[in-house]
Formats: sequence, C-alpha cells, structure tokens
Amino acid sequence: MSEAPHLTFDLEKPGMSNGHLVVPEGADCEALSLPVVSLNKGEGPRLLITAGCHGDELEGPIVARRLLEWLPEAQVCGRVVIAPMLNPPAVKACSRNTPIDGLNLNRVFPGRSDGSVTERIADAVARVLLPWTDTVFDLHSFGLNWDFSPSSTTHPIADPVLMAKTLQMAEAFKLPMTLVWEHPGSPGMFDTLAQNQGKVFVCAEFGGGTVSFDAIALYEAGLRNALIALGLVEGKPEYPTFRQQKVTQTFETRRSSDELKSPARGIFEPRCSVLDQVKHGDIIGALYPMDSLTADVIAIRALGTSIVYAIRSGAYVEMNEAVALVARPVNQ
Amino acid sequence: MSEAPHLTFDLEKPGMSNGHLVVPEGADCEALSLPVVSLNKGEGPRLLITAGCHGDELEGPIVARRLLEWLPEAQVCGRVVIAPMLNPPAVKACSRNTPIDGLNLNRVFPGRSDGSVTERIADAVARVLLPWTDTVFDLHSFGLNWDFSPSSTTHPIADPVLMAKTLQMAEAFKLPMTLVWEHPGSPGMFDTLAQNQGKVFVCAEFGGGTVSFDAIALYEAGLRNALIALGLVEGKPEYPTFRQQKVTQTFETRRSSDELKSPARGIFEPRCSVLDQVKHGDIIGALYPMDSLTADVIAIRALGTSIVYAIRSGAYVEMNEAVALVARPVNQ
Repeated sequence: MSEAPHLTFDLEKPGMSNGHLVVPEGADCEALSLPVVSLNKGEGPRLLITAGCHGDELEGPIVARRLLEWLPEAQVCGRVVIAPMLNPPAVKACSRNTPIDGLNLNRVFPGRSDGSVTERIADAVARVLLPWTDTVFDLHSFGLNWDFSPSSTTHPIADPVLMAKTLQMAEAFKLPMTLVWEHPGSPGMFDTLAQNQGKVFVCAEFGGGTVSFDAIALYEAGLRNALIALGLVEGKPEYPTFRQQKVTQTFETRRSSDELKSPARGIFEPRCSVLDQVKHGDIIGALYPMDSLTADVIAIRALGTSIVYAIRSGAYVEMNEAVALVARPVNQ
Repeated sequence: MSEAPHLTFDLEKPGMSNGHLVVPEGADCEALSLPVVSLNKGEGPRLLITAGCHGDELEGPIVARRLLEWLPEAQVCGRVVIAPMLNPPAVKACSRNTPIDGLNLNRVFPGRSDGSVTERIADAVARVLLPWTDTVFDLHSFGLNWDFSPSSTTHPIADPVLMAKTLQMAEAFKLPMTLVWEHPGSPGMFDTLAQNQGKVFVCAEFGGGTVSFDAIALYEAGLRNALIALGLVEGKPEYPTFRQQKVTQTFETRRSSDELKSPARGIFEPRCSVLDQVKHGDIIGALYPMDSLTADVIAIRALGTSIVYAIRSGAYVEMNEAVALVARPVNQ
C-alpha cells in the first residue's frame, strides 16, 4: 500500500526548517519531492506561499526563492511556509500542464490520492499544506505569449466578509493592477477550495513575456508589500515602477465578454500596450491574413471604454483565439 | 516533371506588383505560395527585404507588412522587393525550423530544387529573388526565450571593401546596437551566399521576448532609417528610444568565447538587463538547483569587461545551455 503524502520535517518546529512535501508514487510515476521551507516565529499570521503550479510561469518560483535570501532574517512574527515549485515535472518541461498526464494542476483540486500524478500533487497540497494556513499567496504569471500587467487577482466570492478581506489583501501588493476576475467557474481551482474553507487567497499574476531582471524586481517588491501588510515584516510599502509609473488601480473583468478574439487566422499585431485606456471603436490590434499582401488588414477594436490589461504577443493566431483582455475600474 | 520556382508577376513591371513566389511541390508537400510585393520606381538602389525565415520570430513579418502601408507612397526611386514570410509552414507552427522536414531554412542555402521543402524554399529564394538585388535586409529576432538588444548584425567578411559597405549599412539602422558577430561558420546561411555574390547583406536581429507595440515601433523606425540611408525614401533618420535612451553603438562578439553557459541544470534568474556594462566577476545571473531550497545558489559571472547584449528569460535550463551573450566595443 502506498504511503500518505507528508512533510519530511515537523511544521511545528520553531525557526527555519527545510525539506520536502512527498507526493506518493502511483502507476504513472515515482514519488515526487516538492521543496518546502517553513519559517516559524511563533504567534501571528499564518501564510502559505505557493508557486510553480504551471511550469511555464517561472516568475513565481524565482521570486519565492529570492524571498529566502532575506525573509528568514526580516520576519518578526508568525509563520510562513514556502513551496516554490508545486509541479516539478511541468517546470522541467516548461509546460503549463503536467506532461505525464496532461492535466492542469489548477483544475484538479482537491485532487485524489489514488489519481494520476497531477491529482496526487493537488491531494498532497490540499491535505498537508492548506489546512495549516489562514492566507495563501499563489504566484502565477501569464507565460511568454502575452504582455500582461503585473497584478494581484481574486475571483468574486459569495461571502461578503471574505470578499472584502481578500480584496484588501490583494490591494496590499500595490502592483499596477488589482483585478476582480469573474470567470465561468472552472471546477478544480486552488482558490475555490481555499475560499470554501474560509481562507484569504490571492493569486498574483506576475505579468507575462520575458522573465527579466526588471520584472523580477517588480514582483519581489509587490510580495514584500503584502508581507508588510500582514505584519510579518516591518517596513514601508513601496509602489513599484511599471512603464515609468508608480500607480495601482482596482479593476473588474468578465472572462466571457471582456475577451477580444481574433476574427480570422493570421498574424496578430498588437497596436496598444498594457494599461492603455481605450474607448469604443479604438483599434487595439491588427490581423494580417497570411496568404496575400494586398488582402485588407483586419482591425480589432475595443467594444467600450476600458483598459487593456493583457495583450497577445505578435504571433500567428487561429480564428477565435483570445488576443486581448480588458477591464473597467471598480465603482468605488 | 515539376515546374521551376517562379514569380507570378513580372519583376520588371513599373509601379507596385503583388503576387507570389511559387515553390514547386515535392514528395513531402504541395507547392507553396510565398507572398511577394515589388515596388518599382525605376533607376536607383535595388533592395530585397525578407522576413519569416524562422517561424517563431514574428517581428520581421509584422514590420515588413507595416512597410506596405507607407512605402509605396514614400519611395522616391529604385526598386524594393518585400517577401515577408519565407517559411509559411514554420510561421503557422510558430517553430524555428520547418515542421515538415525539421530543417533550419538559414542553414540550407543555396538549397536544392529536388530536396525537401526547406531546401526547395532556399532554392527558390536563391534563384529567383537574390540574383536581382544589390542589398538584402533579412529580418530576424531572438524569439520569446531571450531578452535581446534590437540590433543590426553582420558576420566578418573577408573582402574589406564589402565589409566596410556592409558595416556602414548596418549602422544606418541606428538601432541600439550594431553587432559584428564572429561565429563558427555554420554552413548554409543566407548571408554567406549573398556576400559571396558581392551583395550587401544586413541581418536585423529585432530583439527578443514579447512582440509588443513598443517593440514594433522601434523596429519600424530602424528599417525606415536604413531606407533613408539607401536614398529610397526622403527624411531625417531618428534614433529610436530603447530603455529610455537614444543611443547606438557598434560591438563585436565571438560566438565561442562570448557565450556564458549554465554551470548546472536548474532555474535561471537574470540579474542584469541587456546593454548593461559588466566587468570581470560581476554577477550576470543566478542558477537555482531544483531539488533543495538550501542548496547554494550558483552565481554566473562575467569573464571580462563587456556589455550584455542578450540574456535568457528566467526559465528552467539544462547544464551548458547558453544563458547570456556579451560583446565589446569595436576599436574605432
């Protein structure tokens, strides 16, 4: 009989502990050891930081790893557990989904102990790491194919008290955008599971495109701001600079109606930048049909007043592929 | 018997002509039609602009396509032929090499009329488009996995007169960097074939990372500067802004010794930005071993005084994978 998922160290031990979350073997692969660090300074907030859920979003693992260079000394109270690489097979393959079973880890929570490897990872995280914490920061990004505004995001939550607490936590990152993201309700997401247990869950969407030195500095500053807001670290929050500006705003978006799609197959050219404001009829991108140089360029236009928070990199796209995402300021 | 590669229109016809370069069918795929436009305003320089050689470098096809919005009116003399998509199967697959035969188009020149599809494309370009021109601009970039300084590049050329003419043409782009790139001499490159026929050949390496609105504007400005220098277009050249600076410099690099490689497998974190100057011992990046959070971070250091012109996006890398490229100013 297979062992149960477990940590290789005692989470209650004071100070810094370093080890692994063991995901038991199954028919499809051997046991996995996900690196985990616990920083236990006693009473105070309990925070779980996870990253590397999707293997092509490396900002999170890098920033989580950078935290270890200063947080053990800077932390003044409370407890932080950091798991910077939830899905090692996907990270090694640089793929969103786990290559072994083709599953998206963020669609299979709470997982299954007798399932395939991705389901076993979710089961281990849900049973061993999640019950222990009050707050989760799950560090994502948008991969190499999109230009995306660095954001802290949440989905709408039915419980108004938890919604208010979550939004306040998300805004504490002071990233250029805080986003309330109404989506069609994909089953199996990590945030839904945590919220159903009354926990504050913020998903950081750390931009897109190249994972550069500048980008990493920006994301680390956002995470530090959130740690200060929780009282885990002392200091003054800073508004990181993005596109020569130091601002943060709260927006809402609907996945269904705020997604602009390519009207045909061809080469997409972005004609605006993230955080640009657009109004009805403004051109946000152009589509070049592939076969003829005199075929009309197809303009892709905004449907209403909004800001562009994500735009596809110039690339060959299929018809109906998403090329831009827009949002509107939350009514204050 | 298969037809010969040919244009669907007469290259000698005055004014604007639009059609295709037909690459004959072979055993592996049907005939391809590569879109081509000819802008013939009589006497003057003869320029061939090619793009889309590698299917994951879409800056070139987009900028070549944008040219058609203003160049037909702006051109004052001479002849320009634009072929913005040399390798349609690779562009559709978003892959560097042609998916049908796995070959790199820029390693099979002059191609073979009885070869596989990539060799037939090279043969068509070499026999139909190249003989006609004096100058070639081949628009490349560095794909999504690198941050790269927008550059016009050439390799060292044995003939000093052609070398001087080529370097002067490359510098006329006024992109942030002009690069003389000494490489191990890969056979089958398009530039070698053109240079052996006495032609000026400039390869624009239009950056890397996300193909954004800002990036495209920068590249289009560089191409316009080069058209002005050739006398095809009237106007004043501009130094495009890159990282809040308007500068251009000429550098040289050796592919063998100026490539910094990862000392182990792990997650690479860039710790500098392109065009940063570094000296011996400076850290340009860090490598995090994957398995343990307390394993030492491995610093990757510069070997001498140089500028970083390309750095890998944060990502999982194998041992000995290139993570940074450096160069030194050309002695003036």
